[in-house]
Amino acid sequence: MEFIINKECFNKAITDVSHAVSIKTHIPILSGIKIVANSDCLTLLGGNSDIVIEKNIPLTIDGVMKLEVFKKGTVVLSAKYLSEIVKKSPDVIHVKMNENQSVTIQSNEIVTNLNGLHSGEYPNLPQVEEAGYFNIPSVELLEIIKQTVFAVSKSGVRPALTGVNLSIKDNKLSCVATNSHRLALRELPLESKVNGSFIVPSKCLNELTKLINNEAGIIHIFITKSYIVFKANTISLYSRLIEGNFPNVSGLLPQDLKTIITMDTNALLKGIDRACLFASEWRNNNVHLEILDNSKLRISSNSSELGKIEETQSIKAIRGDAGLSISLDGSFLLDALKAIKEKEVKLSFGGPMKPILIEPSDNSSYLHLISPVRAY
Amino acid sequence: MEFIINKECFNKAITDVSHAVSIKTHIPILSGIKIVANSDCLTLLGGNSDIVIEKNIPLTIDGVMKLEVFKKGTVVLSAKYLSEIVKKSPDVIHVKMNENQSVTIQSNEIVTNLNGLHSGEYPNLPQVEEAGYFNIPSVELLEIIKQTVFAVSKSGVRPALTGVNLSIKDNKLSCVATNSHRLALRELPLESKVNGSFIVPSKCLNELTKLINNEAGIIHIFITKSYIVFKANTISLYSRLIEGNFPNVSGLLPQDLKTIITMDTNALLKGIDRACLFASEWRNNNVHLEILDNSKLRISSNSSELGKIEETQSIKAIRGDAGLSISLDGSFLLDALKAIKEKEVKLSFGGPMKPILIEPSDNSSYLHLISPVRAY
Repeated sequence: MEFIINKECFNKAITDVSHAVSIKTHIPILSGIKIVANSDCLTLLGGNSDIVIEKNIPLTIDGVMKLEVFKKGTVVLSAKYLSEIVKKSPDVIHVKMNENQSVTIQSNEIVTNLNGLHSGEYPNLPQVEEAGYFNIPSVELLEIIKQTVFAVSKSGVRPALTGVNLSIKDNKLSCVATNSHRLALRELPLESKVNGSFIVPSKCLNELTKLINNEAGIIHIFITKSYIVFKANTISLYSRLIEGNFPNVSGLLPQDLKTIITMDTNALLKGIDRACLFASEWRNNNVHLEILDNSKLRISSNSSELGKIEETQSIKAIRGDAGLSISLDGSFLLDALKAIKEKEVKLSFGGPMKPILIEPSDNSSYLHLISPVRAY
Repeated sequence: MEFIINKECFNKAITDVSHAVSIKTHIPILSGIKIVANSDCLTLLGGNSDIVIEKNIPLTIDGVMKLEVFKKGTVVLSAKYLSEIVKKSPDVIHVKMNENQSVTIQSNEIVTNLNGLHSGEYPNLPQVEEAGYFNIPSVELLEIIKQTVFAVSKSGVRPALTGVNLSIKDNKLSCVATNSHRLALRELPLESKVNGSFIVPSKCLNELTKLINNEAGIIHIFITKSYIVFKANTISLYSRLIEGNFPNVSGLLPQDLKTIITMDTNALLKGIDRACLFASEWRNNNVHLEILDNSKLRISSNSSELGKIEETQSIKAIRGDAGLSISLDGSFLLDALKAIKEKEVKLSFGGPMKPILIEPSDNSSYLHLISPVRAY
């Protein structure tokens, strides 16, 4: 294996695949990056037992030569040291494999020898040739993830709840995340020959948002029984699916709404953020909401030890019963409001112990549900 | 106590004094900020058992009204919550103390009640009226700290070595820090009626650089037997001195120099930084220096497990014996080079086991010494 490569290209690719590399692993080969030099491109692979990131560097980018491969080959190098060496290199980098997997990395007068590992030990990528397949524009995919992934369960007691459920049926994609106290749902029309229900780990989706942030265009998604693969232009993310059944949420949406109020999203977000300051002393981050004079919402929280915080905000529109007084987990409401990009938000209440429905005012494609808590 | 204050002024002052507030303390009052409202200014105090920061906010800044005091008084409020409340306040802040040390903080429609502590329990500031006194321009003080403080001992085995020794004699200030393996020395002419030797804790000096970073002008320094006080325009830092004797370093400077080389500071810094990558595997961060052909310096380090790294740099000037081969702690050399702002650096060697002298090429006011280690 021997090639010359532009420093910035190499550095960016190493940073991208390093996201998936285990720092603390009992399997030494997984602390490395697998480098494959082909005649027409360089491929880097970094992974752990759940996800693998694959990055391709072509010979030229926008007509400018970035890579020259003199001899094909493959090796695994320590992600930590390879990344540091490349970052600290002043110029174009010349990589050459010698005997015994020892690799010379040279940049100007600086010569580093890094002991490599045999690439044959590196795990194989899952096969996706026979997989079901659909496309989503990257902008929409990022939006879906942002609107749902925060709501997954942080505890591993019910593994299925640590992922986002994608279900595809009748040309509609439905994405749901819940920790059983709050729920986020997003729906999207989708042309797809695949049908079914899959649970994608939240870690995979969080990595994906970092990787495709600046990649425009279409993301190709392949699904098998146990794997999902997201393929963008030069980068692919492979992830295991979570086994198990995701709860059926269709019956959870409240039918009998007693009070519906419309608020300014950003003002409400800031108010709930302030109320959460003292609420964090409580197990459920208790924040109390109360309607005053049919026109104002009082947001409050208190702590016997610290003090109390209270403010009132104008209600933009109100329908139904004005006698509302309810407590909920302020951090859940904060997360839901952060995911809403519309200027106005609608909060619908079915009664003091019924889930609260939070939706943007003029968009029916996504919603949030939060269970109330007993008032303090 | 009752006053109205500009949000940004209050926030900045809280941030400044919070630097000294103990987050984890067994003395609850020290987790608070003491607020003193006088008729002509507001004073904030934050501290721990070693240092105290005092900040004054006048009624007007550059002719613009920032503070209005309606009723004098004093209280201690939780630094953590006060800081969060003020940060999240939208506008001018109205603070009023009620009965039982309960304090109302209001900004527009947002009303917070924070339980305060009785200010009588807050420790008194040390008295410095009778103290010895001298002045240093803040720019020079920051430079002195930057050139010495990194070299203090990180271990507490010899407490005197965890501070920087200031000694004033014959109108000369001498600042020394050492961990007994490396030493940093800076000298400065100084008009002072105080004479003596004082050990200032490195923590205090590190805090000081954050506080006076943007404060121009003169810093007034007061010294008593057990305290030092740094007073800038609106901010003061009080610190305990470290008791004990600082080692006499005057005999350590090498007399019999065998080889003196001049190098480009920045290029050498980058080279040592790269060599340190593998050196960190060693107890002493072993980096090896060797003169080649009377004109080049080879910098290398190796690790049996990882590999090796090696580069050569041009020597700009050389005097004396060219047969040099020496190992030292690369991280110490890196620290010394980072503290040198001149473009060229002079390295002087007295022999394989004699301390290495590192000085800027055209400035005799500061220097560094590093003990070599046995070669690997």
